[in-house]
Amino acid sequence: MTRTILSSASSEVVIGFDEPFCIIGERINPTGRAKLAAAMKQGDYSSVAAEALAQTGAGAHMLDINAGIPLADEPRILAECIELVQSLVDVPLSIDSSIVAALGAGLEVYQGKALVNSVTGEEESLEAVLPLVKKHGAAVVAISNDETGISSDPDVRFNVAKKIVERAADHGISHRDIVVDPLVMPIGAMNDAGDQVFRLLRRLKDELKVNSTCGASNISFGLPNRHVLNGHFLAMAALAGMTSAIMNPLHKEEMDGVRAANMLNGSDPDCAAWLAANRPADGARRGNRRRRSSG
Amino acid sequence: MTRTILSSASSEVVIGFDEPFCIIGERINPTGRAKLAAAMKQGDYSSVAAEALAQTGAGAHMLDINAGIPLADEPRILAECIELVQSLVDVPLSIDSSIVAALGAGLEVYQGKALVNSVTGEEESLEAVLPLVKKHGAAVVAISNDETGISSDPDVRFNVAKKIVERAADHGISHRDIVVDPLVMPIGAMNDAGDQVFRLLRRLKDELKVNSTCGASNISFGLPNRHVLNGHFLAMAALAGMTSAIMNPLHKEEMDGVRAANMLNGSDPDCAAWLAANRPADGARRGNRRRRSSG
Repeated sequence: MTRTILSSASSEVVIGFDEPFCIIGERINPTGRAKLAAAMKQGDYSSVAAEALAQTGAGAHMLDINAGIPLADEPRILAECIELVQSLVDVPLSIDSSIVAALGAGLEVYQGKALVNSVTGEEESLEAVLPLVKKHGAAVVAISNDETGISSDPDVRFNVAKKIVERAADHGISHRDIVVDPLVMPIGAMNDAGDQVFRLLRRLKDELKVNSTCGASNISFGLPNRHVLNGHFLAMAALAGMTSAIMNPLHKEEMDGVRAANMLNGSDPDCAAWLAANRPADGARRGNRRRRSSG
Repeated sequence: MTRTILSSASSEVVIGFDEPFCIIGERINPTGRAKLAAAMKQGDYSSVAAEALAQTGAGAHMLDINAGIPLADEPRILAECIELVQSLVDVPLSIDSSIVAALGAGLEVYQGKALVNSVTGEEESLEAVLPLVKKHGAAVVAISNDETGISSDPDVRFNVAKKIVERAADHGISHRDIVVDPLVMPIGAMNDAGDQVFRLLRRLKDELKVNSTCGASNISFGLPNRHVLNGHFLAMAALAGMTSAIMNPLHKEEMDGVRAANMLNGSDPDCAAWLAANRPADGARRGNRRRRSSG
């Protein structure tokens, strides 16, 4: 089965269908968080450091690093955050930007094999991002939209993903280094959003044989009891074939969903991670760690 | 798609792949509940009445009625409980006994089309229960074990289910009136219990085209944080094709799993049931009712 290997300077993580679900912490992201954005813009990365430690402590296997701040020097800030986070924790990182120069700056300072977040099916994105991914020997998140936007037809979204995988191959990038984001729509706005994404995930696994990820919390946008819904979505998506998610590891409800799915999918031998996470006293801080030293 | 129709005197419920998941309340069962057993044996059915009202109030679409009390007159007690419950609530019932005479006594007094719980693949069970099901025009839960016990091989369990469906056809009972219980093992004792049952559920849906049910809480036997695990199991099982469960509707965690699965599987138009159940003030009491008056 397809294995996507990411690494930091000293450890690696494998995303794959026979692996425990890969939790990519989403919290280092100033979007919609004015105080964090202002601090990062001024070079105050204390919150970035705190979020890195909190998320890995809660069980994140990787961290997404986003420095998308309007009118700021995003390439510099992103690179500085990556250097800081890599000095604090040893999980692999996802370098998250819509600006190619920022992705490049992040990759320049990154130690290990990063996940580049992201390339889309748009010509301009394909031709700018894929060479960068190849040059740095990275892996990449492929988002299944293109110049026409995000199709509500899952078959169109599948075809965009397929196009990206094929184009990546032209650049010498294996399908093992593509992690497709099938795009999760808010179910409150689109009643078949769950069904759509489950079908897409099965096709990505069975036909393209690629790993997958998503921004899990999109599903519950605008609805009450979001975290519980996100947790059940994650468990169902994992059953349909999703192998990672960009999510908040600090929410127990979401982590419950991932841990239950791992156990029910046969990826938690002896229920060890479930038992550790649900010990009466110290359970809340324990995750299903699976980092392996590569040194 | 296969639709299993059950009814009370005045309402009906459809179990099916395009229907909301059918919640069969498990609470009227003296097994392991000494006080309830003693009361029922003495003809005190006040707790039975209370459980009937509480479970339907919490959103159960059907109720399972079990009167398995050692050294008691089970046929009489079961029949009396059925009469009482049918006088109080209008949901269809599952008549639950391992004693054929008790199933017969229950069916004699039952108003509507009942679910008989259960027949197994054992010769003696097949030849005693199926004629009773046919005579009363009922549906039946088929448990996939036989004289050799419960196989740990899901293919063997599938074949037992297939044998029951075929034998039922010989008795003039449609596969639409068979609800297969693939048997859920405790995942704490058998690490592939989840994977096994998901595979079986897909085969039951795709190959036998039958509805399915299970005792959902078996999965979490012996583990901590059981209700949360049960809820995620229910959601994943629903995605794999399970269409009903015998479960405790009084636990919010399990009901969250069912409601999330309904919404994500496209069976909760406009998220109406999710929104109703998660209203800040009165949410806890509201279920995703789907009874339809047949009168």
